[in-house]
Amino acid sequence: MGDTGYGWISFTTDYGTVDGFVAACKGVMAGIAPGVPVLDVTHHVPPGDVRRGAVVLAQTVPYLPPSVHLAVVDPGVGTTRRAVAVEAGDSVLVGPDNGLLPWAARELGGARRVVVLDRPEWHLDHVRSTFHGRDVFAPVAARLAVGRHIAEAGTPLDPDELVTLPEPVLRCGHGYMEVEVLTVDRFGNVQLAAGPEIMAELGRTVTVSVAAGATGFRVAAGDTFGSVDGGDPVLYLDSADLVTLAVNGGSAAERYALGPGDVLRLSPA
Amino acid sequence: MGDTGYGWISFTTDYGTVDGFVAACKGVMAGIAPGVPVLDVTHHVPPGDVRRGAVVLAQTVPYLPPSVHLAVVDPGVGTTRRAVAVEAGDSVLVGPDNGLLPWAARELGGARRVVVLDRPEWHLDHVRSTFHGRDVFAPVAARLAVGRHIAEAGTPLDPDELVTLPEPVLRCGHGYMEVEVLTVDRFGNVQLAAGPEIMAELGRTVTVSVAAGATGFRVAAGDTFGSVDGGDPVLYLDSADLVTLAVNGGSAAERYALGPGDVLRLSPA
Amino acid sequence: MGDTGYGWISFTTDYGTVDGFVAACKGVMAGIAPGVPVLDVTHHVPPGDVRRGAVVLAQTVPYLPPSVHLAVVDPGVGTTRRAVAVEAGDSVLVGPDNGLLPWAARELGGARRVVVLDRPEWHLDHVRSTFHGRDVFAPVAARLAVGRHIAEAGTPLDPDELVTLPEPVLRCGHGYMEVEVLTVDRFGNVQLAAGPEIMAELGRTVTVSVAAGATGFRVAAGDTFGSVDGGDPVLYLDSADLVTLAVNGGSAAERYALGPGDVLRLSPA
Repeated sequence: MGDTGYGWISFTTDYGTVDGFVAACKGVMAGIAPGVPVLDVTHHVPPGDVRRGAVVLAQTVPYLPPSVHLAVVDPGVGTTRRAVAVEAGDSVLVGPDNGLLPWAARELGGARRVVVLDRPEWHLDHVRSTFHGRDVFAPVAARLAVGRHIAEAGTPLDPDELVTLPEPVLRCGHGYMEVEVLTVDRFGNVQLAAGPEIMAELGRTVTVSVAAGATGFRVAAGDTFGSVDGGDPVLYLDSADLVTLAVNGGSAAERYALGPGDVLRLSPA
Repeated sequence: MGDTGYGWISFTTDYGTVDGFVAACKGVMAGIAPGVPVLDVTHHVPPGDVRRGAVVLAQTVPYLPPSVHLAVVDPGVGTTRRAVAVEAGDSVLVGPDNGLLPWAARELGGARRVVVLDRPEWHLDHVRSTFHGRDVFAPVAARLAVGRHIAEAGTPLDPDELVTLPEPVLRCGHGYMEVEVLTVDRFGNVQLAAGPEIMAELGRTVTVSVAAGATGFRVAAGDTFGSVDGGDPVLYLDSADLVTLAVNGGSAAERYALGPGDVLRLSPA
Repeated sequence: MGDTGYGWISFTTDYGTVDGFVAACKGVMAGIAPGVPVLDVTHHVPPGDVRRGAVVLAQTVPYLPPSVHLAVVDPGVGTTRRAVAVEAGDSVLVGPDNGLLPWAARELGGARRVVVLDRPEWHLDHVRSTFHGRDVFAPVAARLAVGRHIAEAGTPLDPDELVTLPEPVLRCGHGYMEVEVLTVDRFGNVQLAAGPEIMAELGRTVTVSVAAGATGFRVAAGDTFGSVDGGDPVLYLDSADLVTLAVNGGSAAERYALGPGDVLRLSPA
């Protein structure tokens, strides 16, 4: 797609929607790539939370059409952290080199080519130190979308040199597993860093402890929220194929006081 | 429009905007119907609040162009609740059969044809039990938008068989009316389930009691917020032609502790 | 551009996104100007906060393509306040005449022509007193976008007759400056009503007092958040070229309890 451009630009940030930051980026892109629609992933990544941005982006890109995926969660903006474009599958990712992009690249088939965005002529004329989303990343994303070639955007970088985040905890013990909470969604569903094979091993009833020494509680495995009575917990394989703890009609995150980074111990009951 | 498609897809959910759920649905639709713009109604229906979703959708569709109205507030996802498409006026509604769609269908001229969405070839290949928005409803909406015929989407259902919500309370007593709060908007304006004819009966000053036995307070009827002094309450016919209680420059919902489902007693003062 | 229309409509309101208000306006515009994309600036201006709306709009429009800038923060809706369209630069602003538009017009090059929107045939047939966004401003914006001429939209008004907001405080004393907080962004960065020339005068370390008599604290001047250690305050020139107080990895607004309208005293340390 690199030669003829991309039909869409997806857009993920921690900018929120109370300011004009997202709009300013879209305005810059509208000027360069007026016919390319922008599909918002989310702009509500918690400020500076690179890990949360990486999780949402990685779980969403498999359902997006071939795109320039512009993603900016960038607490190191204006420092020496690199700005990069990453070709992966039939898409290209654009953003800071701080761990935000590699999980999404993996979902798309792996980073095939990376360039460091060091060509000022691809950026706005006056780059401010605190808003590279608008002044660097948006113009680069728009130029790639209209068919400019990634090789012209900057200096090649070995994909193995990209900054990566630590992989989430997934440990198997004698008769139990320890699994990290990857993320919590709007409904309070608690998504764990474990896939279908772990779900299969756990069986139909699971004992869950929120800490290594804590008393566990029993949770039924099911297909969906309604597999259990209202107010009851359920463990299921969610829409990203990850083991998830929910409460039918309620919030598991609130009930069990769980958040990203917590580690649960699971065992067949 | 069924044969040639629809120019727009409107989109209403309780998915929020902090996760990638809305984007995943839009990505699926972009793949099938790339030229059809999506117009977001709201994604901030409170989780599982079918009634609130039904109210917002019904009050918005009269102002939208002929569309596929995709709406997903679906606490029973993955259970035996039906998935449906509903032709009404020059639009078609797509969503769960749980009461979310009929009020909007009524605003559009009434449900003319209904099908149950039971054709797997219209859905994604792998339907997850907890995300029919992405895996069932979005692909159906997109196919209808590009001109596939509703009759091919599933098995016909008698429109009278659609699940409906209870109508809101509107009772007339001797010299008073009891009216249910239908919804509260962003500004704290309290919209009642009563139209212009009730407004006319109430006259220029109204006594409002927040419960059957409570002491009432007097409210002036007016045309707009600025019809009364700052901080004063006002009763007016809102932009959906419903009787609404507001406070000029403030929140009536906060001041009087009112929310959807509460019943007010109104009488001419 | 007035004769051939505008390629974009930007949209700024205090409507929030929990109701269908924004969608209803977009639906009206979709009916009149179906091919003109709408670029949302923000819909999260605090209810009725004209000043905040004016600040966000003015700082965003320089980065938007030639557009109809539709902006509605309108606590006086339905009263005698005027509705206006304002030509400025290669764009036109549409909204209430309450101070919301002039700062943006100034950024675009100054108001060149103003009309009062008093032609009912440009509005919806039935204008409700509380929703001029949908019934007056949206249809006017859409008609201008598709090339209808502003002169037909209403009666000319001298641009000097537009309602304006008070300019923010910027006072120079003996060895200090008093500067008003213009706005606070999503990250808690505190933007002051002072530009590059003030930044230059302040030097590399600045004493900041949150009130005239309060004890000051010392803040390093830098280029970006990462110019100081995590948790430290920094004063920098932000992406709108205004002096801004931030905390690296934190919220300056929270730490120093600052909000719009507060006045800081700054002096070289």
